[in-house]
This record gives sequence, structure tokens and C-alpha cells, in this order.
Amino acid sequence: LSEIESIKKETMNTVLTFKDNQVTIGPDQPFVVIGERINPTRRKKLAESMKNGDFSLIQKDAARQIAAGAQVLDVNAGIPGVDESALMRETLQAVMEVSDVPLCIDSANPEAVQAALEIYPGRALINSSTAEEKMLTKIFPLAKEYNAAVICLITDENGIPATAQARLEVARKMVNRAADFGLSTEDLIVDCLAMTVGADHTAGKTTLDSISLISEELGVNINLGASNVSFGLPDRKVINVAYLAMAIARGMTAAITDPTVPDISTIILASDLLMGRDQFGMNWIKAYRERNQSS
Amino acid sequence: LSEIESIKKETMNTVLTFKDNQVTIGPDQPFVVIGERINPTRRKKLAESMKNGDFSLIQKDAARQIAAGAQVLDVNAGIPGVDESALMRETLQAVMEVSDVPLCIDSANPEAVQAALEIYPGRALINSSTAEEKMLTKIFPLAKEYNAAVICLITDENGIPATAQARLEVARKMVNRAADFGLSTEDLIVDCLAMTVGADHTAGKTTLDSISLISEELGVNINLGASNVSFGLPDRKVINVAYLAMAIARGMTAAITDPTVPDISTIILASDLLMGRDQFGMNWIKAYRERNQSS
Repeated sequence: LSEIESIKKETMNTVLTFKDNQVTIGPDQPFVVIGERINPTRRKKLAESMKNGDFSLIQKDAARQIAAGAQVLDVNAGIPGVDESALMRETLQAVMEVSDVPLCIDSANPEAVQAALEIYPGRALINSSTAEEKMLTKIFPLAKEYNAAVICLITDENGIPATAQARLEVARKMVNRAADFGLSTEDLIVDCLAMTVGADHTAGKTTLDSISLISEELGVNINLGASNVSFGLPDRKVINVAYLAMAIARGMTAAITDPTVPDISTIILASDLLMGRDQFGMNWIKAYRERNQSS
Repeated sequence: LSEIESIKKETMNTVLTFKDNQVTIGPDQPFVVIGERINPTRRKKLAESMKNGDFSLIQKDAARQIAAGAQVLDVNAGIPGVDESALMRETLQAVMEVSDVPLCIDSANPEAVQAALEIYPGRALINSSTAEEKMLTKIFPLAKEYNAAVICLITDENGIPATAQARLEVARKMVNRAADFGLSTEDLIVDCLAMTVGADHTAGKTTLDSISLISEELGVNINLGASNVSFGLPDRKVINVAYLAMAIARGMTAAITDPTVPDISTIILASDLLMGRDQFGMNWIKAYRERNQSS
């Protein structure tokens, strides 16, 4: 059993790079935070400055997130009415000037993804492909050509499956289709899609069950954009913080979130400690000292 | 599969009563908090008052814990040099005067446990038996005679097993020995023993793995005294809060803890919400309103 387990764990390591720097996502690694802040959606001031070719806010967000513990930065340049490929390149360039961590190219537009991959020096993460044929037949070949990893959203032509078992089947389909394009499980990170419990009180449980089922059955890394789960409810931060800890306990290995929110980075460090990924509690104690110095 | 699951879940319901009031511990029930405060250990003032026959502090603690959401109250009357059976009865009596929730009789002394069971009107919870023969051959017959449930600490003559698999075997031994005395799985709640991660950084993970393994394999409810895990580390409250959420995600159904600590009761409500045990988020929203009224 332990030999099988160790083989499975080895296949689950997903490596991202930027120039000489490397980040490994996997069940025996410290949890990886993908900083979500470089995104003009619902940030009017940021969108305006990006349109005007001013990337100083972007660069500040990059630096702040890295300082707060982001090991990867998500880069989104989608602004309605603006050429996404061109703006993605400019944004990426601006981030690369100040960042030494690997980047995650966030776009639903395969052309913008390709434009970014062409100038990225390393192994990037693509955010994302769905299980829809029209999407994955564009994204998976790009990932292969540019040696990138891909976040796989488990939604297909029929939408998001209602049960954990059905989500496993969609995830399995994506793993199999990825193999058709020469990608293996370590090139994929499955996003288990956290729907809001405000609309359906079983939504959180379904996603938690999907995380254990998919990571155990397919040996892939698991990602979540964990803040959606609390949409429409009061005291969202506590719900989000609880959900991060619960999803980590179930096998989530990375999340797209905001590390500059202190409660979020602290609960992730605590969860790592409790998952046995922080020897002697060194990271926990170091972060505690930093919190107390800065306050 | 779903039929097997539903059968398993049914066997996992543990019912406790006090007079006409009933609490059900189980995977489909709201998480059960067993209030830990009625305990003179390391509470000098409380111990002094109990010795002097003054139970007003005890009664205040009972009322405060129930108001904060405790569905069961743990009652410990162990003071060195004092007749535990007599003091247990007096303490229990005092708590029963002000409490309408089931009680948990907390003693390592089988005579004190029996003294309490004799006067308790309902189905109590005994805290606890170990897997040691000299202990379980006293506690299990008492549980059968007085129709009580028992918390089973998975430690035996060799101490606490190091791995989750070894803890499962000790738990299995307890389930089998309990059956010899006429007790079934719904009469047992297994305590998976949270050791401090400060001394061994894998201790938290081992306990989390024990929770899933034992609840899935044996179909028993799982309890934890969750605050020990952070012993010796800074910012213990965050670690404890993260651990509660993680253990609930793994299948813990009850915990002996202090519901009067706001962060603890809030994280438990959030975890229930995310486990699909709070329809329409009604408990979450109600507690949010109460928090905002009182502050």
C-alpha cells in the first residue's frame, strides 16, 4: 500500500518555472497560493490604468502578493472592448519586470493565452480549459507546444455536474483527452469548482467530496477558487477561511486567492502545519513573528 | 454504493438524552459541541469553590456554555485528595438543576462514573474508556447496565499507536470488545487523539487520517479534544480553529471544546454550513445576527 501511495504522490507533482525559479505543487509540498489580484474584473481603477498603458498598480499588486506569500501570480487582462492578446502581453511583461515567481495566464481566449505563452520564459500555468471539446482542442495543444501546465475546470457542454461522482467522470474525460494531446497528469490541475452554499446548501459538501475522489482516483493536483462558496452570505471571510482549511484537509494542493488578506494566509499556514508540511513549525513561527513585528 | 452509504450512516447515529431532551450525534446532524468548561483541572478558583460545596460557578459555566451552543456538557469533578464519587454526584446534581442538555460524565475512575450514572435520568455519555483491558472491562459493563454511550480513547497497554492504520486496529479492538459486553457501534464515539504538532510535525496529519479511516471502516462517530494539537506553539487559537474545520471535513462529528470562545463556535457553524448540514444557511445567518446584536 505505501509503495502505491508513494508512486501516486510522485505523479502528482506539478512543476512551474520562471527563468531559474521553480515552484512545485503536490501533496507533500507546502500549499501553493496563486495570487488572484492582477485582474481588472470589478476593479474599475485598475482597468482604467491598464487601458492607459500604466502598469504601476499591477506591479504594486505583484510585489504585495509575493511579499504576502504568493508562490504563483495569476495574470488576467480581460477588459471588454480591448484587444486581449496585446493587453495580456503588456501586462505579463510588466509583471515579469518585478516578479520572480512563476505566472498563471488567466484567459478564456486561446489567442490571448498563446500570445502570453510566446513571451513567457519558463513553464507557465494556463487558467484554464473546460472539458468542452471546442475549448480543450485549442488549449491542450498550446500547453503541449509551450510546455505549460493547465487548470482544468470540470464543466462540459452540459454545465457543472451535480454530484462528486459525475465530476470525477468529467475530470477523467479531461485527463484522457489531455493524454491524446501528449499531456500527463502532472501537467494538469483540476479545479473542483466551489459553488455558493447560499443557493444550494449541499454545494460545499459536493465540492469537498469531489476533491477527495478526484485526487485519489486520478492522482492529479487540485485547485479551487475558494471565495465563491460564500457568495450572498454574511461574514463571508469566516466561511472562506473555513473552506480553505477543509479543502486542504481533503487534498486541495493550490488555490487562487488573495494572500494579502491576513486571515487567509494565516489559515493556510496553519493548515500546512496540521497536514505535516511544516517541520518543527518553522514557517508558522516565522510568520507569527512577522505578524507581530508589523503590527 | 449509495444504499451501503446510507446504511452505514444510520448505524453511526449516537443518541444521548436528558429527561425528555435528545441530542443525536451523526454525520448528517449538525456538529455536536460538548462543552469542556466544567472541569476543576487547572482552574484553582473553581476547584476551591467545588471543595467548599459552592456550585454557583459551575452553574454559571453550564448556562454560559448552553447559551453559546453546547449541546452536551462535560462534567469533571476530579480534584486531588477529594472523594471523586461524592463530588461527582454533587457537581452533576448542580448542573442538572440548571441544564436541559445531556451530560458527559468525565472521569478515569469507574467508581465515580458509576456514582454519576446511578443518579442520571437519561442516556449519558461516559468520558472515557481506553482500550486497556483493566479499563474497558469496568467501563463497558457500566455503559451496558445504565444504557450510556462511551467515548473510546484509542490508546492501549502500548500507548498511543503511531500510525492511522495502527489506530484503526486499536479502535477495531474496542468495537469488538464492546460487542462482547452487548454494546454496538452507535454506543461508541471514538476519540482520535490530537497530539501536539509542536513535538511531532506529522501528528496532526496522522490524526486526520485516523478520523477518515476509522469513521469509514467502522461506522462510528468521531470525537476529538482539539486544543491539544497546538500546545507549545504561538497563536494557538488559529491552529485550533483550522484543526476543527479540517477534522470536520474528514468526518469528526463531535468535539469537546469551549463554545464560549467566539472563534470556535463560529468556525463550527461555518463548517456545518460547508458540510451541507445547514439548510438555507439559517443557523449561520441567525448566529451572525446574534453576534452583531451583542457587539
